[in-house]
Amino acid sequence: MSRLVVIGADPGGMAAISAARQHTPDLEVVAIERGRHTSYSACGIPYLVGGEVDDVAELVARSPAAHRANDIDVRLRHEATALDLDLRRVEIRDLDGSRTYQLDFDHLLLGTGGRPFRPDLPGIDLPFIRGVQTLDDAEELVAQVEAVDCQHVVVVGGGYIGLEIAEAFLHRQAHVVLVEQAPQVMASLDPEIGALVTAAMHRHGVEVHLDTAVTGFEPGKVLTADGVFDADIVVLGIGVTPNSELADAAGIRLGVRRSIRVDRRQRTSAEGVWAAGDCCESRHLMSGEPVHVPLGTVANRQSRVAGTNIGGGYATFPGVLGTAISKICDTEVARTGLTSLEAARAGFVYDVTTVESTTRARYYPGSDLMTTRFVVERGTGRLLGAQIVGGAGAAKRIDTCATAITAGMTVEQIAQLDLSYAPPFSGVWDPILVTARAALKSVR
Amino acid sequence: MSRLVVIGADPGGMAAISAARQHTPDLEVVAIERGRHTSYSACGIPYLVGGEVDDVAELVARSPAAHRANDIDVRLRHEATALDLDLRRVEIRDLDGSRTYQLDFDHLLLGTGGRPFRPDLPGIDLPFIRGVQTLDDAEELVAQVEAVDCQHVVVVGGGYIGLEIAEAFLHRQAHVVLVEQAPQVMASLDPEIGALVTAAMHRHGVEVHLDTAVTGFEPGKVLTADGVFDADIVVLGIGVTPNSELADAAGIRLGVRRSIRVDRRQRTSAEGVWAAGDCCESRHLMSGEPVHVPLGTVANRQSRVAGTNIGGGYATFPGVLGTAISKICDTEVARTGLTSLEAARAGFVYDVTTVESTTRARYYPGSDLMTTRFVVERGTGRLLGAQIVGGAGAAKRIDTCATAITAGMTVEQIAQLDLSYAPPFSGVWDPILVTARAALKSVR
Repeated sequence: MSRLVVIGADPGGMAAISAARQHTPDLEVVAIERGRHTSYSACGIPYLVGGEVDDVAELVARSPAAHRANDIDVRLRHEATALDLDLRRVEIRDLDGSRTYQLDFDHLLLGTGGRPFRPDLPGIDLPFIRGVQTLDDAEELVAQVEAVDCQHVVVVGGGYIGLEIAEAFLHRQAHVVLVEQAPQVMASLDPEIGALVTAAMHRHGVEVHLDTAVTGFEPGKVLTADGVFDADIVVLGIGVTPNSELADAAGIRLGVRRSIRVDRRQRTSAEGVWAAGDCCESRHLMSGEPVHVPLGTVANRQSRVAGTNIGGGYATFPGVLGTAISKICDTEVARTGLTSLEAARAGFVYDVTTVESTTRARYYPGSDLMTTRFVVERGTGRLLGAQIVGGAGAAKRIDTCATAITAGMTVEQIAQLDLSYAPPFSGVWDPILVTARAALKSVR
Repeated sequence: MSRLVVIGADPGGMAAISAARQHTPDLEVVAIERGRHTSYSACGIPYLVGGEVDDVAELVARSPAAHRANDIDVRLRHEATALDLDLRRVEIRDLDGSRTYQLDFDHLLLGTGGRPFRPDLPGIDLPFIRGVQTLDDAEELVAQVEAVDCQHVVVVGGGYIGLEIAEAFLHRQAHVVLVEQAPQVMASLDPEIGALVTAAMHRHGVEVHLDTAVTGFEPGKVLTADGVFDADIVVLGIGVTPNSELADAAGIRLGVRRSIRVDRRQRTSAEGVWAAGDCCESRHLMSGEPVHVPLGTVANRQSRVAGTNIGGGYATFPGVLGTAISKICDTEVARTGLTSLEAARAGFVYDVTTVESTTRARYYPGSDLMTTRFVVERGTGRLLGAQIVGGAGAAKRIDTCATAITAGMTVEQIAQLDLSYAPPFSGVWDPILVTARAALKSVR
């Protein structure tokens, strides 16, 4: 009987185990988890912080006990500290017992995840500065929020996490300042579309400071080029750094942004060592370039592929479009494929079409504005990317775009799609069709 | 200068004029309209009846005066009564002035629409029995509803119109009885999915009687095999009959369900005579068969194609998937492609996969159940059709299915799509992906 050791017992790691056992039911499995929880939704953390989700337990899909009942040797508060590829064993440290031991493996799955990027600034280690990546982080943050009368919150970074954490603290009636070094929030959107998100954040009551570098922290204060902001709590949302040190130290090859390099079957450069999730890279379906996309969807899909292959099956992960969706209050944001900047970097010649329309028929109650942008290959008319910002119901349309992009559709083909219409759901021409038709004019 | 005569001044007819004039700016245009309104959303009528839309004017995108300012000779309350293909002229009756005259045309666009099917039953012409197809119908219905204390409403027919009109009268606090001759509501869904809609209607307070034929009407009463129902108003939602008599009398070829036969450029069998919308047929993209799909999306797209061709451009209407969406209260319903029955009739060998999931992450507030069904070609795994019933946010996912079907995707390809995820929008595996994966197991 061969042994699989999984580092990281989040839903990805556990999905990999399930996939592996479908092919090799008697696989021995040890899951090493640094934290106190298994199989939880990290994406749900902002809603725990905001109070929409009451209890940490709601975010946990399956407890350690349930996994153990399923014959998985889950070891919580254990950390992998070294990896010996020749001896095929991993060194484990019991964080509570403070002992260290060796664990042999036949297959090793690295699901070490990522961590919030912490810039090297004075005061960065002050306890009021928080990242939100693990459920343990979240529990500590919620405890801290409930302990202090949290009136002033500074969010550093205007990406998805920044957006969602800002909403969370608005729900808690805090004054929220968002500080972003770049000239726009949502670097994963074109500037014009990012500007719509900034405007929405202002409208929802967030004080947004763009082009503003944080220079350091003092207790209760965030120092920036734009002045000093009071802060009971600071949340870092600048980006995610892959936890690739274990792999790197063992000589496993790293790729883009120091994420672990993998092939389409999620194999690392070391025989029998696999990686999946935020610690490893993906390939972009449009550009063909390696990318680091630390999203739950990608992690889950990669993990399943890794597990199938570990179990002796055959599966590949084709790559990503970087599809993402988020919201702040009633403003929804989504993207897929290439932005203008990404298209230019990948060598595409493109045109951009932006259309304002409505989420529902204009006359239907609750109809709200939405903006759709298409990035379209010049000449062929192929859709390269799409971005949506708008009111409730706007953003899930990104899936239609992701499907069309995957199929290699041109805007002419998209304009002909038989999409659904009824007044509570869209105008008679769905915004996707309207945008495709407008883009078609540019192509012609 | 050549003259285009358009019969029917709804948004379709007017879109055709606009498309034609893009190619031939000096085209003389006469638009003949039997009713009192132009360019209105017939799909918005149930919301006018229900009171979500206050004023008829909100449903009117462009008034007759606006069209006239745009050099379109709009003639309201005029009706085309005969068509002479040899002399290339149409006989028009002024409904208010009661005079009849001839109008020459170079091009004729038949946008005569459809009318609610009225079964030949005793009492069918009683004034409390209503159809809702035109805005004039709607105005009369609303006036009647406001005149009588409308406590009991019987809706005959459980299709989209029946669903939406039932919701409208629930909003008006009426007791609503829905009578359906078939063993299920929503004949355009598989029986198991239709049963979910029936259950939702009951839950929302509609008294649904299936397998119940109406045998006749008496003032204030609907007679059925299942007993007599009191009714202050009866609304017919049994189906739409194409208004094809004018074309038929002139010898123009009819097709399925007596709708006007057209080719892909929307040409009828008569030179220079075109048709678009509820009066004419379409081709189903999956089965290749002619179908009659009286929906606003189809009407608008066909009209544009007709207009482009009339103006001297070149356009084709590729066909329909029969994509449709609707809701009753907070239960959404959508479909695209082929149902089981349609797939069988078209000669496909297929399997069906039905998956229950949630509209949002399970732990996220407002998450509701949704059911997704795929009809999949056996052997190839190609998606043939999809149906969705579920809570708020469920149904617009049908567009992703429509796009995948159009692209000829297999469920294996769909399962690999990079669809969006965040807890307010879906589980980490969007229901479309979950259903594709479940279907993939059947295919394998």
